[in-house]
Amino acid sequence: MDSSQPPPFLESFLGRYNSPSDLANSRPYVTLTFAQSIDAKIAGRNGKQLLLSGKESMVMTHWMRTMHDAIMIGIGTALNDDPQLNTRHLPPRSPNPAQNNHDKPYHLPRPVILDTYLRFSPTSKLLKNYQQGVGRRPWVFCADSLDAADVGDRLASLEKAGARIFRISGTTEDGQLPLPAVLQHLQGLGICSVMVEGGARVIRSFLSASASASSGLVDSIIVTVAPMFVGEDGVGYSYESVPDEVSGFKQIFTEVLGKDSIVGLVPI
Amino acid sequence: MDSSQPPPFLESFLGRYNSPSDLANSRPYVTLTFAQSIDAKIAGRNGKQLLLSGKESMVMTHWMRTMHDAIMIGIGTALNDDPQLNTRHLPPRSPNPAQNNHDKPYHLPRPVILDTYLRFSPTSKLLKNYQQGVGRRPWVFCADSLDAADVGDRLASLEKAGARIFRISGTTEDGQLPLPAVLQHLQGLGICSVMVEGGARVIRSFLSASASASSGLVDSIIVTVAPMFVGEDGVGYSYESVPDEVSGFKQIFTEVLGKDSIVGLVPI
Repeated sequence: MDSSQPPPFLESFLGRYNSPSDLANSRPYVTLTFAQSIDAKIAGRNGKQLLLSGKESMVMTHWMRTMHDAIMIGIGTALNDDPQLNTRHLPPRSPNPAQNNHDKPYHLPRPVILDTYLRFSPTSKLLKNYQQGVGRRPWVFCADSLDAADVGDRLASLEKAGARIFRISGTTEDGQLPLPAVLQHLQGLGICSVMVEGGARVIRSFLSASASASSGLVDSIIVTVAPMFVGEDGVGYSYESVPDEVSGFKQIFTEVLGKDSIVGLVPI
Repeated sequence: MDSSQPPPFLESFLGRYNSPSDLANSRPYVTLTFAQSIDAKIAGRNGKQLLLSGKESMVMTHWMRTMHDAIMIGIGTALNDDPQLNTRHLPPRSPNPAQNNHDKPYHLPRPVILDTYLRFSPTSKLLKNYQQGVGRRPWVFCADSLDAADVGDRLASLEKAGARIFRISGTTEDGQLPLPAVLQHLQGLGICSVMVEGGARVIRSFLSASASASSGLVDSIIVTVAPMFVGEDGVGYSYESVPDEVSGFKQIFTEVLGKDSIVGLVPI
């Protein structure tokens, strides 16, 4: 595979929705993507980060990042993995400008963190990268019901570190931000496409919301299945399904990348 | 793909152990194989049978069956799915004898059912096929601790229907037959290779026993991953893993067959 370009299956898959008329007006285009083991675990015991994706799949994921306006993760993943959400695994730009718009660096997606209780760390890599001019300013979404006296210091130090904080009303019973409201807010901020990268709770929420087609929040799913087993101590993303229905998604492509298989699906 | 022959990756994968010296002396060669959704479910709610494998993967599975002496399933699968465990999806033999030993029909593997409490049905397809001369005689393994007065009638009707019953001592705490003893018994009966097809409890038992390399009971794993989600109501096979270890298996091949991906692994 020519690693200086996104894999063809990725371009044709995500390119399907290039036309704005294809998008729902109330929210950005949403790609849900994650890497898992064969037994559908995305992390080890107690959320321990596992090296699931092979090198080729990792590069594919970074190509995907350049193809979205924003990357969304949950606070669990932000605290646990301290990710950078950048495109550092992409190949250096070719010296031949005709081939790849040499002048322009890769598009860096906006980091978005779902953080109901504002637990994000001011010393995270995302904020450090922003301070050092090598990352975009992270956007942190929290609940608007937070007690100012309780979170005042955290809010101040996060803003001082560079985070932009957004307050969303209507937290769900289990303490999650309402995804439709967050997505609508992102669209209002000019975000047309969001890549949702996890973790387990966020994946579960998007899949559950999409189990019935009427309320779907996902426009495409790209799963990397790594050829390993983790076992029952690992973290899964099992979601609430509609009884006696097999998923709400249909396969568009299945590809082998290195040792991994990559499956692309869209809502039925 | 030429469907008149087994897929090349299958032949080279399973062909690795053609030499008897490669096999442990105490048991047959064991291939664990199953089809699952992306979210690692092998059946729907309450064990409802799902059409997971595509046509190409189904044919591959039937090629695998011809390549093993026996197929093992648990009683749950036997009662729930009433499977035939034959090779009916393989293509008709070519009229050119030079190509495929035209005279010989496909090898039919011996059906083996793990059935601690002797619940197997005398009217199952496996027994009917045997009675009609289109299937091999099923072997049923049960616990030797069963009360004769309690199971006498069932045992008699199963034997009358054609089943051959074997009693195994040492049932585990959760009512399962001890796999090493069953495998040893099968080897004593001339079985050199066993394809373990499920269901969930049997897969779980073989994976759990293989989580630590020293007690491994599996020589190869072939998983079909179908491009769909089932959700948390489905039946999974989660197994007891060794904490902080990622599986005890390494990938040998990853292939796309139709819409499915097929992953082959061996013990590390």
